[in-house]
Amino acid sequence: MQNRPLILISNDDGITAPGIRNLIEIMNQLGDVVVVAPDGPQSGKGHAITIDGILRADTITIDDGPQKEYSCSGTPADCVKLAVNVVLKRKPDLLVSGINHGSNSSINVIYSGTMSAAVEGSLENIPSIGFSLCDFSWEADFEPAAAYIKKIAEQVLERGLPRGICLNVNIPKPSEEKYKGIKICRQTKGNWEEEFDERVDPRGRDYYWLTGKFVNYDKEEDNDEWALANNYISVVPINSDLTAYELKQKIESWDL
Amino acid sequence: MQNRPLILISNDDGITAPGIRNLIEIMNQLGDVVVVAPDGPQSGKGHAITIDGILRADTITIDDGPQKEYSCSGTPADCVKLAVNVVLKRKPDLLVSGINHGSNSSINVIYSGTMSAAVEGSLENIPSIGFSLCDFSWEADFEPAAAYIKKIAEQVLERGLPRGICLNVNIPKPSEEKYKGIKICRQTKGNWEEEFDERVDPRGRDYYWLTGKFVNYDKEEDNDEWALANNYISVVPINSDLTAYELKQKIESWDL
Repeated sequence: MQNRPLILISNDDGITAPGIRNLIEIMNQLGDVVVVAPDGPQSGKGHAITIDGILRADTITIDDGPQKEYSCSGTPADCVKLAVNVVLKRKPDLLVSGINHGSNSSINVIYSGTMSAAVEGSLENIPSIGFSLCDFSWEADFEPAAAYIKKIAEQVLERGLPRGICLNVNIPKPSEEKYKGIKICRQTKGNWEEEFDERVDPRGRDYYWLTGKFVNYDKEEDNDEWALANNYISVVPINSDLTAYELKQKIESWDL
Repeated sequence: MQNRPLILISNDDGITAPGIRNLIEIMNQLGDVVVVAPDGPQSGKGHAITIDGILRADTITIDDGPQKEYSCSGTPADCVKLAVNVVLKRKPDLLVSGINHGSNSSINVIYSGTMSAAVEGSLENIPSIGFSLCDFSWEADFEPAAAYIKKIAEQVLERGLPRGICLNVNIPKPSEEKYKGIKICRQTKGNWEEEFDERVDPRGRDYYWLTGKFVNYDKEEDNDEWALANNYISVVPINSDLTAYELKQKIESWDL
């Protein structure tokens, strides 16, 4: 191959997380890799950007791979903006984000820093994919997912994605049973029911930890939670046009 | 009216911002108001939630209105979660967020803390609206918008909204000309072209400020940027199901 594709990598668990180190290894087989990732954990940061402070992007060497790496002080979305506008000389051919330690299926997509990097890439008209493994452990086993991640990345490199649409890929936690394959899905209807952990500090003041459990409202089989529960890797195309078109028509008949 | 509706108010500019103070005044006419809003600016925080630290919610009195108010240490999405799960005794009948100082039209919706409060409300099955005035100034004139905000809130109280869908309302900066009315719109296709302001700190190290200009790709007239440019108040229904259904079908034919 004459010109190897340029591949941008980011994440939200921070540049030293095992998930991104595994993703870098896989992408080094496919192209020239540049990593611009947060210098520390940025989980749950949604699509936050830094408008009230400064940003840094420093070169860093973490292992002896061929990739170039930049450690960034900002959010995942900041990383992508800095990569595209400051770090890279040309638009990358692919952006991959992750591999996240923990699921970004269903409604988790809107809270996810990993997915915000992918969404930001799609807005820059870069074919973009977020990868997540349904295992929060730092010792999670990314190996069984590697071939699938490579295949999905190759297909996106070959076929592209429309501007503003990226892929949300979730991978079951490895078990005795091999993965059954890949399912193209829609986002599961579900939500977190929050159960705050209420505590009192040593000075007698109340404070709260966010906890909660995920509740799946969805009874169908074409969604990402079903796929993951049945040991499939789920792929959901994610739109940055949030217009609820079906409701738009209805509201037009309101008394406004 | 026997039972006045319970109205939850939040924002991203902080609980003392003129925008939310104006919104409280309008909502006091419609129901019993509880305010749970950030204790400081949270602009551009997207759908961030606080999972790596604690949250506080302290009662506070800012003016002599009838509303109850809580100042919260977290993001706008945290405020809504805390309100629903800790502060309020029952599910509110309406959630309003804002009035934001500055536009949340087009792609700004995904970066907006104001809108994330509304989206979070919609996930809790509360009819929810985010209001934004296209004027960043702290001295912005909210008065000409008041009647429209009241009307939209009344309609949502009367008709409800489906779970997971909220309204993104943007209001032009007041001018000599009166507002022409309300337009139901779709989200404009557009994006920020980032122009980072690159600087060098006193120790010789590079740093960056995020700046950039909005670029509108949309040539149609049914979108929120067109409405605002033509002195209409824009209303876009916003979906939390991000599935790009039209692409889902296409990807099913890929070699995966």
